[in-house]
Amino acid sequence: MNKRFDLLALGEVLLRLSPQGGERLTQGETLNKQVGGAELNVVSGASLLGLHTGIISKLPANSIGIYAKNKIRFCGVSDDYLAYDNSSDARLGVYYYENGSFPRKPGIVYDRLHTSFQKISVFDFSERLYSSARCFHTSGITLALSQLCQDTAIEMIRLFKEHGALISFDVNYRQNLWSGFQAKTCIQQILPLVDIFFCSEDTARLTFDKKGDTKSILKSFTQDYPISIVASTKRVVHSPRFHTFGSVIYDSRTDTFYEEEPYRNIEVIDRVGSGDAYISGVLYGLLSEPQSCQRALEIGNAVSALKNTVFGDLPSFTPQEIDSVIQAHKTPEVQSEMNR
Amino acid sequence: MNKRFDLLALGEVLLRLSPQGGERLTQGETLNKQVGGAELNVVSGASLLGLHTGIISKLPANSIGIYAKNKIRFCGVSDDYLAYDNSSDARLGVYYYENGSFPRKPGIVYDRLHTSFQKISVFDFSERLYSSARCFHTSGITLALSQLCQDTAIEMIRLFKEHGALISFDVNYRQNLWSGFQAKTCIQQILPLVDIFFCSEDTARLTFDKKGDTKSILKSFTQDYPISIVASTKRVVHSPRFHTFGSVIYDSRTDTFYEEEPYRNIEVIDRVGSGDAYISGVLYGLLSEPQSCQRALEIGNAVSALKNTVFGDLPSFTPQEIDSVIQAHKTPEVQSEMNR
Amino acid sequence: MNKRFDLLALGEVLLRLSPQGGERLTQGETLNKQVGGAELNVVSGASLLGLHTGIISKLPANSIGIYAKNKIRFCGVSDDYLAYDNSSDARLGVYYYENGSFPRKPGIVYDRLHTSFQKISVFDFSERLYSSARCFHTSGITLALSQLCQDTAIEMIRLFKEHGALISFDVNYRQNLWSGFQAKTCIQQILPLVDIFFCSEDTARLTFDKKGDTKSILKSFTQDYPISIVASTKRVVHSPRFHTFGSVIYDSRTDTFYEEEPYRNIEVIDRVGSGDAYISGVLYGLLSEPQSCQRALEIGNAVSALKNTVFGDLPSFTPQEIDSVIQAHKTPEVQSEMNR
Amino acid sequence: MNKRFDLLALGEVLLRLSPQGGERLTQGETLNKQVGGAELNVVSGASLLGLHTGIISKLPANSIGIYAKNKIRFCGVSDDYLAYDNSSDARLGVYYYENGSFPRKPGIVYDRLHTSFQKISVFDFSERLYSSARCFHTSGITLALSQLCQDTAIEMIRLFKEHGALISFDVNYRQNLWSGFQAKTCIQQILPLVDIFFCSEDTARLTFDKKGDTKSILKSFTQDYPISIVASTKRVVHSPRFHTFGSVIYDSRTDTFYEEEPYRNIEVIDRVGSGDAYISGVLYGLLSEPQSCQRALEIGNAVSALKNTVFGDLPSFTPQEIDSVIQAHKTPEVQSEMNR
Amino acid sequence: MNKRFDLLALGEVLLRLSPQGGERLTQGETLNKQVGGAELNVVSGASLLGLHTGIISKLPANSIGIYAKNKIRFCGVSDDYLAYDNSSDARLGVYYYENGSFPRKPGIVYDRLHTSFQKISVFDFSERLYSSARCFHTSGITLALSQLCQDTAIEMIRLFKEHGALISFDVNYRQNLWSGFQAKTCIQQILPLVDIFFCSEDTARLTFDKKGDTKSILKSFTQDYPISIVASTKRVVHSPRFHTFGSVIYDSRTDTFYEEEPYRNIEVIDRVGSGDAYISGVLYGLLSEPQSCQRALEIGNAVSALKNTVFGDLPSFTPQEIDSVIQAHKTPEVQSEMNR
Amino acid sequence: MNKRFDLLALGEVLLRLSPQGGERLTQGETLNKQVGGAELNVVSGASLLGLHTGIISKLPANSIGIYAKNKIRFCGVSDDYLAYDNSSDARLGVYYYENGSFPRKPGIVYDRLHTSFQKISVFDFSERLYSSARCFHTSGITLALSQLCQDTAIEMIRLFKEHGALISFDVNYRQNLWSGFQAKTCIQQILPLVDIFFCSEDTARLTFDKKGDTKSILKSFTQDYPISIVASTKRVVHSPRFHTFGSVIYDSRTDTFYEEEPYRNIEVIDRVGSGDAYISGVLYGLLSEPQSCQRALEIGNAVSALKNTVFGDLPSFTPQEIDSVIQAHKTPEVQSEMNR
Repeated sequence: MNKRFDLLALGEVLLRLSPQGGERLTQGETLNKQVGGAELNVVSGASLLGLHTGIISKLPANSIGIYAKNKIRFCGVSDDYLAYDNSSDARLGVYYYENGSFPRKPGIVYDRLHTSFQKISVFDFSERLYSSARCFHTSGITLALSQLCQDTAIEMIRLFKEHGALISFDVNYRQNLWSGFQAKTCIQQILPLVDIFFCSEDTARLTFDKKGDTKSILKSFTQDYPISIVASTKRVVHSPRFHTFGSVIYDSRTDTFYEEEPYRNIEVIDRVGSGDAYISGVLYGLLSEPQSCQRALEIGNAVSALKNTVFGDLPSFTPQEIDSVIQAHKTPEVQSEMNR
Repeated sequence: MNKRFDLLALGEVLLRLSPQGGERLTQGETLNKQVGGAELNVVSGASLLGLHTGIISKLPANSIGIYAKNKIRFCGVSDDYLAYDNSSDARLGVYYYENGSFPRKPGIVYDRLHTSFQKISVFDFSERLYSSARCFHTSGITLALSQLCQDTAIEMIRLFKEHGALISFDVNYRQNLWSGFQAKTCIQQILPLVDIFFCSEDTARLTFDKKGDTKSILKSFTQDYPISIVASTKRVVHSPRFHTFGSVIYDSRTDTFYEEEPYRNIEVIDRVGSGDAYISGVLYGLLSEPQSCQRALEIGNAVSALKNTVFGDLPSFTPQEIDSVIQAHKTPEVQSEMNR
Repeated sequence: MNKRFDLLALGEVLLRLSPQGGERLTQGETLNKQVGGAELNVVSGASLLGLHTGIISKLPANSIGIYAKNKIRFCGVSDDYLAYDNSSDARLGVYYYENGSFPRKPGIVYDRLHTSFQKISVFDFSERLYSSARCFHTSGITLALSQLCQDTAIEMIRLFKEHGALISFDVNYRQNLWSGFQAKTCIQQILPLVDIFFCSEDTARLTFDKKGDTKSILKSFTQDYPISIVASTKRVVHSPRFHTFGSVIYDSRTDTFYEEEPYRNIEVIDRVGSGDAYISGVLYGLLSEPQSCQRALEIGNAVSALKNTVFGDLPSFTPQEIDSVIQAHKTPEVQSEMNR
Repeated sequence: MNKRFDLLALGEVLLRLSPQGGERLTQGETLNKQVGGAELNVVSGASLLGLHTGIISKLPANSIGIYAKNKIRFCGVSDDYLAYDNSSDARLGVYYYENGSFPRKPGIVYDRLHTSFQKISVFDFSERLYSSARCFHTSGITLALSQLCQDTAIEMIRLFKEHGALISFDVNYRQNLWSGFQAKTCIQQILPLVDIFFCSEDTARLTFDKKGDTKSILKSFTQDYPISIVASTKRVVHSPRFHTFGSVIYDSRTDTFYEEEPYRNIEVIDRVGSGDAYISGVLYGLLSEPQSCQRALEIGNAVSALKNTVFGDLPSFTPQEIDSVIQAHKTPEVQSEMNR
Repeated sequence: MNKRFDLLALGEVLLRLSPQGGERLTQGETLNKQVGGAELNVVSGASLLGLHTGIISKLPANSIGIYAKNKIRFCGVSDDYLAYDNSSDARLGVYYYENGSFPRKPGIVYDRLHTSFQKISVFDFSERLYSSARCFHTSGITLALSQLCQDTAIEMIRLFKEHGALISFDVNYRQNLWSGFQAKTCIQQILPLVDIFFCSEDTARLTFDKKGDTKSILKSFTQDYPISIVASTKRVVHSPRFHTFGSVIYDSRTDTFYEEEPYRNIEVIDRVGSGDAYISGVLYGLLSEPQSCQRALEIGNAVSALKNTVFGDLPSFTPQEIDSVIQAHKTPEVQSEMNR
Repeated sequence: MNKRFDLLALGEVLLRLSPQGGERLTQGETLNKQVGGAELNVVSGASLLGLHTGIISKLPANSIGIYAKNKIRFCGVSDDYLAYDNSSDARLGVYYYENGSFPRKPGIVYDRLHTSFQKISVFDFSERLYSSARCFHTSGITLALSQLCQDTAIEMIRLFKEHGALISFDVNYRQNLWSGFQAKTCIQQILPLVDIFFCSEDTARLTFDKKGDTKSILKSFTQDYPISIVASTKRVVHSPRFHTFGSVIYDSRTDTFYEEEPYRNIEVIDRVGSGDAYISGVLYGLLSEPQSCQRALEIGNAVSALKNTVFGDLPSFTPQEIDSVIQAHKTPEVQSEMNR
């Protein structure tokens, strides 16, 4: 295929503001400024691994929007499909995040209503968009943000599918945006179009009323819908600073499950975006070596584990670094501390 | 009079986010976190000078709202009349500010729509409020923010007036909130209730279609309405870092104008809030020594000049410091560099 | 009861200066500026939980004293009973603190002699003070600082007791201030007046020569003196970054002991003030629901555990956050990582 | 013309390390990390104004090289023509810069020998490069860095010229890299190929032995060589913090000089890169509106003046901001302080 | 002469704590940590210029004292004559300093009573001290700090004189330490021993009751006492950020006055210590080229001007930098902006 | 012995640049500035413990070199034997370091070629050097940096040996500088001159082809060469944040092995330089109490463990602190949390 982008994603870009060094949102005088957003995190991670990616989004036409655009470029993600909102109520959504420390959980305050992104529509983009990518990705967050977002997302899924793109979808259920019933009803509309489906086991049980063990749940989605790949992650939170993370992938085309040992006792610096980082790794694997689900899973797990160790939503690594982490994970007995 | 507060003000509290050290909003990784808001700045300044003050406002019931409350207390302003918004769309307005450096002007991005404050209503407060203060202050910004804000402000002006409070009002015209015509029409409704009126000469000319020299403009307001005191500031912006600031006060009860030499070549570190600081000084002067307009003007000018030299919206000084600045201003020939 | 304050405490306010990010006092170029002090920490924590509190103290009448006053207000603690020292040798005590990292222990340098607080006397305050609070709290640190402090503290305990306040006392033994024998002799004078008594098991054994198991030690204090409540905490320091913390409360009125599972492997960011935070939680519990010692103990443990996870002496939380931590502590099997 | 890039530049990218806040290189513990480089600064500025630009350079294949690449993208400059050096002695050049304050001059320490860039060769890039841009820019710095750099630059100038690109060249004489005689001899080789020529009056006199007034010097270059446009800037350094800046452009095709009032008393925050910013503005003007030299000059002056007010080598502005600065510069009598 | 040190000074070392970036002492969360002290500033400056110097002082034997020692070494000043105070009330004096911005003056809070330095005595040092230096320097601050300090200083002056050292003395009058009368009475005791005398014109008039013009005042000191050199500085404070600085030196041995044009409009970043920096430059000049008072004056003026442009008490420059500033000062018409 | 220095070391001083707070080299805007270098770390640590030490090195004669010199002095290390490089290609080597967090390993980028140090020669120093120290130390890094460095180091070893100094050598094998074979061949030349030899077990096996258990390996070196002391450390890296560290020392003069329990679960803040810190402790022990290898081992282990808990290459502690850590290590059952 000879398309300009390997991966395009539709999603909101948020300003992320975080206190540092054990400070809290209710105190302190300094906030670290970053951008984030589930789908941006995915394409940013895939871009670092080597895919050509872009984000489809809408930003306010002011300094904050320009900052977001600059950061998107910094991550190697194309800004070709950013629409700008010149209206007087244009705004970039904000979220405030503070890390946790046992027994204090991480805290998050969302201020993402009435944003420019909630006005995004297919009319903001030309037809060319739909033929420019091998794969299109979005998540349940985009569906949940506003009716217009939902309509836009579903229409884009249809148009990308028509133009031959693979459709990747992450449920990414957030109870503060919609109910489980709303999520299920909406997502069931698009599942007939989805090729690669990301859904945690908990969400499958609670939102989609799935029963049985992990593997039978994964398989059941492919029985109800023409989904090729279902991936499900499992995170064990020992404390805000120590997590264990692993995943399972099911390929319905070959009726095969893929797994590996989870990463145990990850030393978490910032866990936000680590689920998105997983998806970036899996999509990179599937798009660069379509036949190798095992490799995709290993990359996804490594990228996610690594993301937890870096401040900010956005992944930060090179393919060499990922390979070195995978290698170390597979041969725990042969470890060098540092190369020098 | 034996009221609990000398001064209560109705106004929005905003989160202020600013880059530091010559950085710009479109770049950088750190934002300084402060709170500000025209009326909060006024009561905060008056509190530092010694008045008992409070802010009437509405904050989101989340960490960001709690941060704002903490900062309000830090300034010595009572949080007794803060209402909290528990709804899912509660939010604190934000503004992003960067300082200028000639020929680059200061930049400001407002994100203050759909805020919890815009839902403020008289029903958020008990009747006791109106008898608890000697003076009530608000500004044109509050009138312009939403219809509900306007209704609430006007109703509060009426109720405070009924309970014997002095009414202080600052036009504080902001063209990004409403048109000059809207401002004029609305403000004319309340002028019959106003005792102390703050209006810059430019605004008087452009918004209220006043003609003639400064003094005749000031006087004219008191001829149309039963206003006791009209104060008008004049700022000359040599560059973003050097301003000259002075003011005139007219007391219609004695038909007297008050003036002094302006502060020349103020070394500006942060000019935001310096107009509000002026009002805090004048109100402090008028409320503590009602007969001394000249002293009120001197304090107002000194507090405003001083505010320009400190980072953040909120004034920061002691009465001793103000006295020392006034003394130095009056006797430029006798200057010590520093006391030690 | 219809008193203005739920809780007033007498104690020194110190400037706290700490390096950050693994730096040491002997190096580096930046210090974090906070205030702290055992009794201030207690009222600050209780204030965040909802009590009306104030601190009785004496500050230098300079910029550093004003900073301390601002911070006291920031915490929601009343500054009504702050006396100011205008003498030429006025000073605020300072302490320098650096966190530890195994095998490096936390380090502390006190510079708290010759302070304005050491000159505090009952003559600095009007009689009204003693009838304005439901409960008065102070600690052994105040008794140990100077003879005048000791005289003032004992006199205030007597006067508050006369005016019907509950007397709360924390032994808080510090060997760099006085000997165990001095402490015991002095404290025995005031125990006949104490209602709520905080004493760690170690201190009970070493300073008060108590023998036997924890519970019998707690009970023995109530046999010797008319104390209603004795509370004792137990901290296990696995390393400077991992502590386990729990407590026992004995109510002599009902001859009942209260306990719960300790918080294990708390991820410590800053342990200073966590003992004071415990007291703030227990006093809040006892003053808001006098019959519920178990609830008081749970709040105390949760507030203390939480304090360890935040930088600075002063607690930082909301009642909602405490409830959520208690809930999670009681149902470890049902844990969400983060609410979103 | 239908080429992918409007402007490509060949030049070294350097890591820039600067102390902040009045600190010096010989002290302090923190350095601000940026990237810079004369030609990168030019394309970065032109990109912000709306041109499609890229940088032709060579970076070490390590974390520092990746950082540089990320920053290049952040500025909207394409990284398509970055070559990477995998050898064991790969390195990114560094320069250390500290701002001045009268009578202390700015200080600079270069550490730019033996860099990966000094190994750049035409063999690092495919033939496609030369047909992909409307304009190619480089400077005397690139010619001076090493023999290989010089050979590569001259060969690229030839190849771009052959493929129809305009050739832009900035003398940018640096005495610590080569002598005036070396510079003159080398540059005379390429002047027959140059279309747009930037040379300060001082350099023209000292290096090219030009005599007479500014205008006759500018004109003389076009008489010796087939140069279309010659631009020359003039900076007056009142002190490290206050500069005056203006320029003259001569268009040999129409035999016309273009000028405007200089920007006086620019409040300098960081002057590095302001000369490059001038070129970015002029090239943007000439490439977007080829007939309007006056507009190009005005944009160049405004971009340069503005660059002085921002920390770091790289320009930071939007076209709207430039328009607003030009507008204010032309109508000094009608000045608003800030738009709000 | 073959002594180990060129210059030894007796004086207190203080911890200096300053807010940065326009913050104030009454707010903010970060303080910059430095050391300072009039005599330390002198020897530190002289050491940077090339003299072998040391400080005679007494530090607390704790982390803060070790920090001070490390900083002293950092400046190239010997710590051989530091005594340590192991007593439980050992403390390092502190001063808090905030910069000014017109019309806000710089602010300073001293907390320097009861320090370890105030206990310094000749018994803290061996006899060897007095024969180890070519020149001994101290100031009126040391005389004013405590009776013991005064006794120690006077005894050391006598002993150094006996061992053939030049005696340098700076009046450095501070009204918050003693009265003018006290100062005069005390200093008159030591003037018979002083070789090099620093006294500002204002102090000469106010404290020593001198009359007449500057030059006759300077000369009069040498008529009353066997002083060889009298130096007097003159600072004009245009605003906290712009000073003009110059000086006059009188050499009684040749009955000659030395002067040069003052440094005008110095861009002040931090003025503290600039008077001490002047002395360091003059002493360096006199000790390295005893016959050249003019050179000493030029170095003194340049070092002082330069000190104003650097944050912190302590000078920071190299001999090369001083030469370059002097050169630029003498030839204002030939100015390069920056060498590169 | 009556020599001026206890310990002199020959080695390169590097500028160390590190991101902080979980940032990465590829992102962020701030770098922490330190100096480091294997041999500097050794003498710096030994100096803090009380030895008189100096570093033999060569620095560029620019601001970065001066910064390095200042930091060397800050650590109490003499700068008497620093040579300065005034050539136009003078440079200080740089290394960039970022901490790890499992599964992300620490990252390091060296930029240490073509440095001023690589030009160091015996002709930079006078003969006096060799008779001024009781012990001379260098490491395999110095041998590997350049042929000139190697020649200089070997010649210095010979000359110091001739003048009666003990020779201490640390293999410190770095595979990015030379091969194991190169290292072995070179080091075997100098082993006949070495008195105190540091070599990790891994390096002994891989580089020197040693077989058998740790103790027999240590002993074997003393059988091949006239080495008195061989010390070998063992680090277990549980994760980048948790290490276990211990060592063995063999004294061939008494044929005795010395050991103690390792420090387990050290909470690592920055592991760089902890190996050098070990050597500093051992050399301090051997030089101050030559007969007590056990004490030397205990000090070495404690200093190394402690170094891991502090940011930067350079050790930071006092002898008192080391004693307290050793005491706590030996009596784990009797632990106080903090002394106050």
